[in-house]
Amino acid sequence: MSECPGVFIVVDGPDGAGKTTLVGRLAARLRGQGQDVLEVRQPGGTPLAEAARKQALDPALDASPLAELFLMLAARADQVAKVIRPALERGQVVISDRYDLATEAYQIVGRGLPRDRVLHANDLATDGLRPNLTLVLDLPASEGRRRQSKAGKTLDRIESESAEWHDRVALVFRDAAGPGVVHIDATPSPDDVERAAWEVIDAHLVAAFPNR
Amino acid sequence: MSECPGVFIVVDGPDGAGKTTLVGRLAARLRGQGQDVLEVRQPGGTPLAEAARKQALDPALDASPLAELFLMLAARADQVAKVIRPALERGQVVISDRYDLATEAYQIVGRGLPRDRVLHANDLATDGLRPNLTLVLDLPASEGRRRQSKAGKTLDRIESESAEWHDRVALVFRDAAGPGVVHIDATPSPDDVERAAWEVIDAHLVAAFPNR
Repeated sequence: MSECPGVFIVVDGPDGAGKTTLVGRLAARLRGQGQDVLEVRQPGGTPLAEAARKQALDPALDASPLAELFLMLAARADQVAKVIRPALERGQVVISDRYDLATEAYQIVGRGLPRDRVLHANDLATDGLRPNLTLVLDLPASEGRRRQSKAGKTLDRIESESAEWHDRVALVFRDAAGPGVVHIDATPSPDDVERAAWEVIDAHLVAAFPNR
Repeated sequence: MSECPGVFIVVDGPDGAGKTTLVGRLAARLRGQGQDVLEVRQPGGTPLAEAARKQALDPALDASPLAELFLMLAARADQVAKVIRPALERGQVVISDRYDLATEAYQIVGRGLPRDRVLHANDLATDGLRPNLTLVLDLPASEGRRRQSKAGKTLDRIESESAEWHDRVALVFRDAAGPGVVHIDATPSPDDVERAAWEVIDAHLVAAFPNR
C-alpha cells in the first residue's frame, strides 16, 4: 500500500475496452476539481521503458515468454522509480493506463508463466507499490476485437495473438478481485462509462482522502 | 542442475580478468579434443538480448537499478531459452563469458538490490538452469583496472563506476563458493591461466561425464 500523500489509480481491462479514452476523461475531470494529475501508460513513460516496450512487442526480436516478462518488468521498474513514485511523493494523483493486472493477464495466463514466481518478481520491480484503486473495464474479448478492428488499429505482437488466446487472457480481467479493485461495465457509451468510473473515484477519494 | 546431455561451463570474474581470452582458448582446446562447443557471452547472444544489453548499458537511458536488473534478466532469459538450453539438449559443451554470478556482483552488491528476491527472479529467468562448472578468475579489482586502462578500452555504464564500487563488486567474485565453483588465479600469463583452467575442466569432464 502506498504510504505517499498522492493517490494511485489504475485503469485496466482487455484490449479495445476504452482504457485510454477513460484515462484521458478522468484526468480532465480530476483536473477540473483542482487535483494535480499525472497521466501515464504502461509499459512506457520513460525513455528506457519505451525502448523496453518496443523490444517486447517487436515481432523481429520474437521475445521468449520470460524475456517478454522481464522487459515489461524493466519498463515498469524504471517508470515506478523515476516517475510514479516521485509523483505520489509530491502528492499528485497518478492515473495509469494499465499496471500489474496486465502482467497477470498477458504474461501469466497468456504466456503460461508460473503465477507465484512472476508476482514475486513483479513485486520486486515495483518495490511493493500497489494502486489505491484499480478500475477494471469489463468487456467481452470479442467486443474488444470488434472495436479495434473497426478503428483500423495496427496490432502489435501481443494484440495479434489468436482470438482464443485473448479470450483466456480476458478472463483474468473479468475475475480480478482484491483490495481496491472495482469493475466497470465498458459496454455502454464512453459518457456512461466515464460517469460510472467517476462515481467510484469520487467516493474513493472522499472516503480514503477526506482532506482532498 | 542441468539434466541435459550437454555440459555448461561458465567463466566469470571482475572486469579485466581475462574472461574473454580464456573462453576463446578453452573453446579451441575443447574443439581440439573433438567436443562440439558453443561459445556465448552474457548479456547477449540473441538479437533481443543484445538490444536489452545495449539499453542497460546506455548512459542516456540511465536505467534505474531495478530496470537494469530486469533488462539483464530479459537478456539471460532469451539466451537461455533460445540458445543455451537447446545447445545443451543437443549435447554441446556451452562455454559462457559470464552468467548469474555477475548479477550477484553487479546488481545485488553493486546496485544494492535485495539478494534473495533477485536470486529468485534470476532463477525464474533461467528456469533453474545451473552451470556444471563455474571458473572464477581471481584478480584484484585494481589490477583489472590497470589492464583495462592499458588496453585503452572504452568503458560502458557499469565499467565506468568508481574504483570503490568495483572493489566492493570484486569481493563477490573473490568469495564465490558453491557446487561447481572453482577459483583460478588470473595474475599469471594467459598461457598459465589457460593451463590451470584446463586442468579443472579436464578433471571435471572426466569425473562428471566419463563417457565423453
